[in-house]
Amino acid sequence: MQSERFTPLVALELVSDTKEEAITWLLQRIRDKQRNGGAELLVEQLRPGLGVQEKQNPNLFLIGASLQRLLSGAEDLGLFKEFNDGSMRGFTCTNKQNFKDFQDGFLSVAECQYIIKHELDTLRAKDESHVPGHTQAKLYPGKSIIRRLLSKGIMVQMFPLHQKEELKRLTFSWYKKVKLSLQPLGKIQCNYEGQALYFGFLEYFTFALIPMALIGVPYYLFDWDDYDKYVIFAVFNLIWCTVILELWKRFSATLAYRWGTLSRKKAFEEPRPGFHGVLGFNPVTGREEPLYPNAKRQLRVYCVSLPFVLLCLYGSLYVMMIYFQMEGWALSLHDEDPTFWTGVLLFIPSIIYAVVIEVLNLIYRYAAEFLTEWENHRLESSYQNHLILKVLVFNFFNCFASLFYIAFVMQDMVLLRQSLATLLITSQILNQFMEAFLPYWLQRRRNKKMMRRVTKMRTQEDKELPIEEQVRLEADMSTYLGTFDDYLELFLLFGYVSLFSCVYPLAAVLVLLNNITEVYSDAFKMCRVFKRPFSDPASNIGVWQLAFEAMSVIAVVTNCALIGMSPQVKAYFPESDMQLILWTVAIEHGLLAVKFILTFLIPDVPKPIQIQLAKLEFESLEALKKKRVVSGKASDGKK
Amino acid sequence: MQSERFTPLVALELVSDTKEEAITWLLQRIRDKQRNGGAELLVEQLRPGLGVQEKQNPNLFLIGASLQRLLSGAEDLGLFKEFNDGSMRGFTCTNKQNFKDFQDGFLSVAECQYIIKHELDTLRAKDESHVPGHTQAKLYPGKSIIRRLLSKGIMVQMFPLHQKEELKRLTFSWYKKVKLSLQPLGKIQCNYEGQALYFGFLEYFTFALIPMALIGVPYYLFDWDDYDKYVIFAVFNLIWCTVILELWKRFSATLAYRWGTLSRKKAFEEPRPGFHGVLGFNPVTGREEPLYPNAKRQLRVYCVSLPFVLLCLYGSLYVMMIYFQMEGWALSLHDEDPTFWTGVLLFIPSIIYAVVIEVLNLIYRYAAEFLTEWENHRLESSYQNHLILKVLVFNFFNCFASLFYIAFVMQDMVLLRQSLATLLITSQILNQFMEAFLPYWLQRRRNKKMMRRVTKMRTQEDKELPIEEQVRLEADMSTYLGTFDDYLELFLLFGYVSLFSCVYPLAAVLVLLNNITEVYSDAFKMCRVFKRPFSDPASNIGVWQLAFEAMSVIAVVTNCALIGMSPQVKAYFPESDMQLILWTVAIEHGLLAVKFILTFLIPDVPKPIQIQLAKLEFESLEALKKKRVVSGKASDGKK
Repeated sequence: MQSERFTPLVALELVSDTKEEAITWLLQRIRDKQRNGGAELLVEQLRPGLGVQEKQNPNLFLIGASLQRLLSGAEDLGLFKEFNDGSMRGFTCTNKQNFKDFQDGFLSVAECQYIIKHELDTLRAKDESHVPGHTQAKLYPGKSIIRRLLSKGIMVQMFPLHQKEELKRLTFSWYKKVKLSLQPLGKIQCNYEGQALYFGFLEYFTFALIPMALIGVPYYLFDWDDYDKYVIFAVFNLIWCTVILELWKRFSATLAYRWGTLSRKKAFEEPRPGFHGVLGFNPVTGREEPLYPNAKRQLRVYCVSLPFVLLCLYGSLYVMMIYFQMEGWALSLHDEDPTFWTGVLLFIPSIIYAVVIEVLNLIYRYAAEFLTEWENHRLESSYQNHLILKVLVFNFFNCFASLFYIAFVMQDMVLLRQSLATLLITSQILNQFMEAFLPYWLQRRRNKKMMRRVTKMRTQEDKELPIEEQVRLEADMSTYLGTFDDYLELFLLFGYVSLFSCVYPLAAVLVLLNNITEVYSDAFKMCRVFKRPFSDPASNIGVWQLAFEAMSVIAVVTNCALIGMSPQVKAYFPESDMQLILWTVAIEHGLLAVKFILTFLIPDVPKPIQIQLAKLEFESLEALKKKRVVSGKASDGKK
Repeated sequence: MQSERFTPLVALELVSDTKEEAITWLLQRIRDKQRNGGAELLVEQLRPGLGVQEKQNPNLFLIGASLQRLLSGAEDLGLFKEFNDGSMRGFTCTNKQNFKDFQDGFLSVAECQYIIKHELDTLRAKDESHVPGHTQAKLYPGKSIIRRLLSKGIMVQMFPLHQKEELKRLTFSWYKKVKLSLQPLGKIQCNYEGQALYFGFLEYFTFALIPMALIGVPYYLFDWDDYDKYVIFAVFNLIWCTVILELWKRFSATLAYRWGTLSRKKAFEEPRPGFHGVLGFNPVTGREEPLYPNAKRQLRVYCVSLPFVLLCLYGSLYVMMIYFQMEGWALSLHDEDPTFWTGVLLFIPSIIYAVVIEVLNLIYRYAAEFLTEWENHRLESSYQNHLILKVLVFNFFNCFASLFYIAFVMQDMVLLRQSLATLLITSQILNQFMEAFLPYWLQRRRNKKMMRRVTKMRTQEDKELPIEEQVRLEADMSTYLGTFDDYLELFLLFGYVSLFSCVYPLAAVLVLLNNITEVYSDAFKMCRVFKRPFSDPASNIGVWQLAFEAMSVIAVVTNCALIGMSPQVKAYFPESDMQLILWTVAIEHGLLAVKFILTFLIPDVPKPIQIQLAKLEFESLEALKKKRVVSGKASDGKK
């Protein structure tokens, strides 16, 4: 139908044995006009690559759209763009000329891809009872076609394409040059809309660590052997972790406003592809779709998942106890015969424990994913929240239980410092390795042949890799699984810093260094290792904000306890330990109260943005009123 | 202009020396068509009363509206009414036939009055520079006329009228008959829309007290001298105060949904009449209005009001200390010479203290109102929040400081029980007196003459009081100052019950009895003592929910401490007080954590209502999309 040349934005891969009629039907539905229930997009089959290999999958398709279609899609989605007066407004085609820089590059590539994804996702079956040629892939009116194709394994994947020119510019300003300046957040946002907020948070967190690192270094240098001077540092920690989280909310709102995601309304959420149940009518939409009783899901959550998590926590506790036995054994060995080798032996239990923790985390992660999948959540967001909660609790316990045990049961500050250092360094090295280098190496090995050809071509500077090759290359890249692991890592690092950095002031410095390398490895990962992810516009960091805030509450309690235990403070209460404890508890409660009051007092959205949002709402109210008065006049006139 | 007979809904009183031209102008603006910027309402001057008195104010006006006008006003306000299918939807004139019971009594009287108030409030100056005949009452385009008239004292008051028939029916089902059934919340809502939620809360709270009272009575009867058995009761308290607040949120959402206030959007808030500042342009609306720099207000709040409140708290502490000295003096007197009269003397300090507290609260209340007025808040809601916060903190401190002192510093449970009983009983008697009987008596005295005439007329059963008399009677009634004091009272009662009822199990019974009489006295007050208030539709109890939740957190801490101090528990830790304290603190932290997790886990809105709300939103999204596709087709057609 459409034979015009277009910029391919999204690639779509079907399994190689897809029936011809299914392909024809799908392409026709994608190309069909919207009024006929189609998506009105442009599609074309990818030609076979140059180096002809027998195992090349022929069913790769490129999808694009006309500018007009993209703009109307942007309006459907309620995309917010910058208006002439500098405010952010929902885009509408009728007054498109009033938007700032309305011209060729008005919509960023990530936005275009997001629009196309949305249009494909909401491409619904009409009266087909199944996918032509695949009777097992049942359809019913209103069912999303793409989701059915995915869940039945007919569609392998759908992914947005990297835009080479932009990528080159981005990589250069992001990580190719050694620099002291900030990350190019604006450019990152254009390319990875949903992930940009993560990079914003990473940058914010890195900067927030600087004052702590600056205080930590002299502490470390001059008070190394004086474990008692940590009171001031603990007080600083208390304030720090409350203040930076409050300020982050404001900063995040500013970023989200600038990127137009703050007040954008979420579209109605579709059931996730893996969701199954008995066909019925959704009480909200009235559409036919699988239903699964909520009570049954709750039963699975509370009767299977919750006990499982508790069992795992118990197991983790057991491992910890073994570690402490090993630790004691190594210590006794060293005491008996203090040589260099037994000195080295002292560090062995910590290192083994750190490695075991990482392995346990990994295994648990798979179990958690399996369980959450089995809980059969209807919405992706609910699935994500349950998964995050499970993983979070276990990781927190795994990483910090031993430290809490050492600090409050054994009350051995020297050991605490040593364990913290070992844990921090080991887990950082492991993380960086698992996160960036391992996937990179795996991918390198997987498509060695193609890479070799690519590098050969790339040496002849001007010769560009043809689109066929590039798409196939990207199709073979690993899939980026979202910002989950990245946030989790930051969460644990935040924990190390806010909970125990007063006994090991160098922690902030280590985390700071880690964050700086993290920026580079994450950037590299996004640009080179993984397929480009679909952008997933977010107005805030969601459940992670909650997690960080919970951690900061725990930090207040922990730091108060550490202060109460310090010999410095104990010296003020020479005759009675009870007085000391009561005072510590009272002050801790006061601090928690102040923390909550602060959360209420500091507005989450900065004033100028509040005004802009109120203005928009006021205008829409006024417009509505005016419309009513006008229509009232019209009906008056009719009379 | 309109000379048709209409039902008067709202009365409006101007000062008796208002210039004739101002009256003509105002009436003309109220009657004028909406397209000319008028309110399009019906007005007529009240004829002088029967018994001609020289001091009767002639400038009383009755306002009503045609049904058509009321319906379009309801649409403007976005009033939610019950639809044919049982869901609540925003009313629109175009599909009015689809609303349930669309006929004469479709809009309740309270709704009609609310609509008229809104229309009058948004009656704006056009190009008048001042009110005709009153040059001191400046106007500028867009200024609300009614607010200017009020702030310049030209308008005395504007109040909705009681509807006699409805009132008679309401009073009968509400408080005239002794009954075991519930309050007629639906009918109350029709008459006092905003206050209905208060009555709903009062009823809910009363029912919530029943289990506590049921447990409390046997406790009181059988364990009177055993102060140690209160652990189980304290545990019950802990759970009770968390659970009832969570359930209240759900119940409140159900009520608000049924009354159509849950998802109704608040109209844009106008500056309050007392707000003053330099004329400028509002950054949100672009309208000319007084502006007052926020920084200046913050300065007043933090540098004047906050120190003042702290000073008052200190003063209250001082008074408390005097009370304890008096208490000690009375006790020593009784010990020296234990006669009946010195026994009575023992109760004197508590009673004096209770009275002094009430007086202090009253004085402080005026100071708080003055200060909050002086802080010059732009919005009524912000004024209310600041006032509530000030009064709340002081009242809380005043009522509970002595109890905390007795419980945790003196650790004298006998005295605690005695003080609690005295405080509770004294403050209840005082409250009921101040709240209902005093205003009633004052008003009775004020218009004795008219009342006598009224009662004379009423004895001749069938003879109705003419409208002229009724309006003048109502105009002289006291103004109902909102639900503030009622909520405050419930808040303090909730405090007595949740904090200390474990040492005085009869507290719940007393509060329960108080609540039952409260229902009657409040109902009487609303129907007979005060002018009918304008309804102020609320989707929840707002800042009070927060206050009650803060109280329940304090209750958890207090009850844990009381449990930790009980001899029963102490017996488990014979050798070490430190162990006991540490365990108490750990369990308290655990309970607080569980409380917060519960708050997250229990959804605030019941599932069926969530579905209804989601359905509405989904429908509006779909309608928007359909409209776009249709307009897209139209533009296709044009091409």
